Amino acid sequence: MQSLSIERPTIAFMTDFGSYDGYVGVMKGVVLGIVSHVQLVDITHLIPPQRVASGAWVLATSYRYFPSGTVFVCVVDPGVGSARRPVAFQAGNWYFVGPDNGLFEYVLSEQRVEAAVVLSNPDFQLRDVSTTFHGRDIFSPAAAHLARGVSLSELGERIEPGTLQRLGYAKPVRAGDTVRAQIAHIDHFGNLATSVPMALLPDLFDARAVRLVIPERGALVTARRRFFADPSAEQNQDAEPFIYGGSSGHLAVAIRNGNAAALLGVQVGDALEITLSRV
Amino acid sequence: MQSLSIERPTIAFMTDFGSYDGYVGVMKGVVLGIVSHVQLVDITHLIPPQRVASGAWVLATSYRYFPSGTVFVCVVDPGVGSARRPVAFQAGNWYFVGPDNGLFEYVLSEQRVEAAVVLSNPDFQLRDVSTTFHGRDIFSPAAAHLARGVSLSELGERIEPGTLQRLGYAKPVRAGDTVRAQIAHIDHFGNLATSVPMALLPDLFDARAVRLVIPERGALVTARRRFFADPSAEQNQDAEPFIYGGSSGHLAVAIRNGNAAALLGVQVGDALEITLSRV
Amino acid sequence: MQSLSIERPTIAFMTDFGSYDGYVGVMKGVVLGIVSHVQLVDITHLIPPQRVASGAWVLATSYRYFPSGTVFVCVVDPGVGSARRPVAFQAGNWYFVGPDNGLFEYVLSEQRVEAAVVLSNPDFQLRDVSTTFHGRDIFSPAAAHLARGVSLSELGERIEPGTLQRLGYAKPVRAGDTVRAQIAHIDHFGNLATSVPMALLPDLFDARAVRLVIPERGALVTARRRFFADPSAEQNQDAEPFIYGGSSGHLAVAIRNGNAAALLGVQVGDALEITLSRV
Repeated sequence: MQSLSIERPTIAFMTDFGSYDGYVGVMKGVVLGIVSHVQLVDITHLIPPQRVASGAWVLATSYRYFPSGTVFVCVVDPGVGSARRPVAFQAGNWYFVGPDNGLFEYVLSEQRVEAAVVLSNPDFQLRDVSTTFHGRDIFSPAAAHLARGVSLSELGERIEPGTLQRLGYAKPVRAGDTVRAQIAHIDHFGNLATSVPMALLPDLFDARAVRLVIPERGALVTARRRFFADPSAEQNQDAEPFIYGGSSGHLAVAIRNGNAAALLGVQVGDALEITLSRV
Repeated sequence: MQSLSIERPTIAFMTDFGSYDGYVGVMKGVVLGIVSHVQLVDITHLIPPQRVASGAWVLATSYRYFPSGTVFVCVVDPGVGSARRPVAFQAGNWYFVGPDNGLFEYVLSEQRVEAAVVLSNPDFQLRDVSTTFHGRDIFSPAAAHLARGVSLSELGERIEPGTLQRLGYAKPVRAGDTVRAQIAHIDHFGNLATSVPMALLPDLFDARAVRLVIPERGALVTARRRFFADPSAEQNQDAEPFIYGGSSGHLAVAIRNGNAAALLGVQVGDALEITLSRV
Repeated sequence: MQSLSIERPTIAFMTDFGSYDGYVGVMKGVVLGIVSHVQLVDITHLIPPQRVASGAWVLATSYRYFPSGTVFVCVVDPGVGSARRPVAFQAGNWYFVGPDNGLFEYVLSEQRVEAAVVLSNPDFQLRDVSTTFHGRDIFSPAAAHLARGVSLSELGERIEPGTLQRLGYAKPVRAGDTVRAQIAHIDHFGNLATSVPMALLPDLFDARAVRLVIPERGALVTARRRFFADPSAEQNQDAEPFIYGGSSGHLAVAIRNGNAAALLGVQVGDALEITLSRV
């Protein structure tokens, strides 16, 4: 269990704490009391309260863009104070700290876990650990100590990476010209991200036609664009939702200058089916 | 009036400016023009506009977690441009900068003030001081100069710490088995923080029964939990609000996976009464 | 095209991405992968989606307060993926990076542009440039490279500063005792900022009377205050909107402890007319 060489570490925070109460500031205060020479970055603190699956998706679309050695403190934690384990692990070139509840779903499916521990060593926690705010009392201290060079194994007992909690999502698979998947995220603009990697549909723009159906909502999308702003499509199609390759590398749906999620009436978790027609 | 030794100072910001207009960014720009080697941390900028008491509470639950030498810039300032004094003081191991209007209530009741000044020296202000944005023109420059080692006494004339403005809150006291206090804060999740320190109720979990009443709203809470997520209570009590020890060290009220403030219809400032039954 | 000497550079971010999705965190992750010794500051990420003019105003009221050498990454970009140019330029003592779509209106009218380039060099972009997220793929890398000392000319071909896109706003002019202008911004408190520089109305407080009319809304404001909190006006005028000199140096309208925009029913872009009466 060798530490990554970290010249000037970054600690990135993602929570469902909102920006209202000062909880995030407190976590940063705790970190800076342990290590001062760090970059503190917010991913978001507006994960819908206790929606672990949304947090997992936002982390999935973010972590790859951070430098090697970044420590991610992720807290969407409906089970705080219960038996769920507080954990830290190294996966790929990054460290992850948070509750063992599925929040790391995509990281675990995409990266090799080098080592994982349960955060059981009280020497690396605040003196009085509350039952309600492990972000402050356990996760932030652990991240700060990792950033100053403490090794994972000092933070607690090793656990088998395979025991880390998963969300139990079905991986989207293609059967013939059809892919069944789900709405994974709705962003600030109302754009839909699906769980379909673009790599499953390399022939999307060559097919004669495409139908994306969300049966539960009676929603149908048939337009597609190679580019979000496709000049040839500008004239008369602005009001129509279209399929495109989202910035996360997954199939996405948007309306130009509008809110696709509101127009289609869909929600995170809705099942979808996309079918290509060849002739 | 000796300066704290500050190796790599932190400046923490708390305001009611919101995140919409760029006001907070401007304050940080002003700071970085004066001192570049600092950590800038946001506590929150979503204190309800001009609600000094809410700001005081959020600061109270935050400041202890920041490292020694941190400078807090706090601006909830309905009296900006009027006669209220712009002040800075050292209390405990920290510096505080802001309007003298009660915002530092809990800091002043909890910490010994080492020295206090009114920010009257124009050499440590922006050249043109507006009547509307002292966060930019007076408070941020003062904080930046403190962070680079300027002493309090250079920033302006000394004032008696005892003259710093208080909110005039009654301290909760226990009479027999009853404590009268108030709702001090409602957080992002709708959890209620009361002004009752847990130390006033060491026998809370040993008493036969407990009644927390908010007379004005006709609200009554009788459940209690030692732990926020108490496995023995999970089965059939999820819809019931319960009393617990909040992460701030005060008595709190929550509903698991719900919004207690909305359910009970209570607001910040509501009076409450909590009574233990021994037999 | 000489680089500014930048000892410890600041990168300031302004977008319409919201705080919900992690997009801003990703941009910072990209920056920190290129340069670690920087200060990252948020101006705001709550510019109303795709409202370039609002973004231009917020930037106008902010940039002067940042230290020399600051790199501003500004992304309000309805044309992402279309033919609009991604640009970077030095104006006054600062660098600006973003889409060439009018977002830099006030910077261009207030500062001399030393040099400007189109961001065409793929060596200073992420390897796979999406059609939807140039903030991550083009603008953040460019800003990070500027902050570590790369010169503008390495980032792409020089362009004529005069070709940078403007909003085409009419400059407010005074004809006799009347100024015609518009509502430029509504802030978090509901205060109105107008496009009228205070310098156009040096006699505002000497005139016998003043009338500010917003014809489209039937709104009229006649009160004025030298100071936002004018003690002589406190007693009986708290419910009345008043004219004052805003912190941005422009004529503004507010109600003490209230929301002027909501009361008057006005919106950004509304035309206004202000007239002084001398006798």
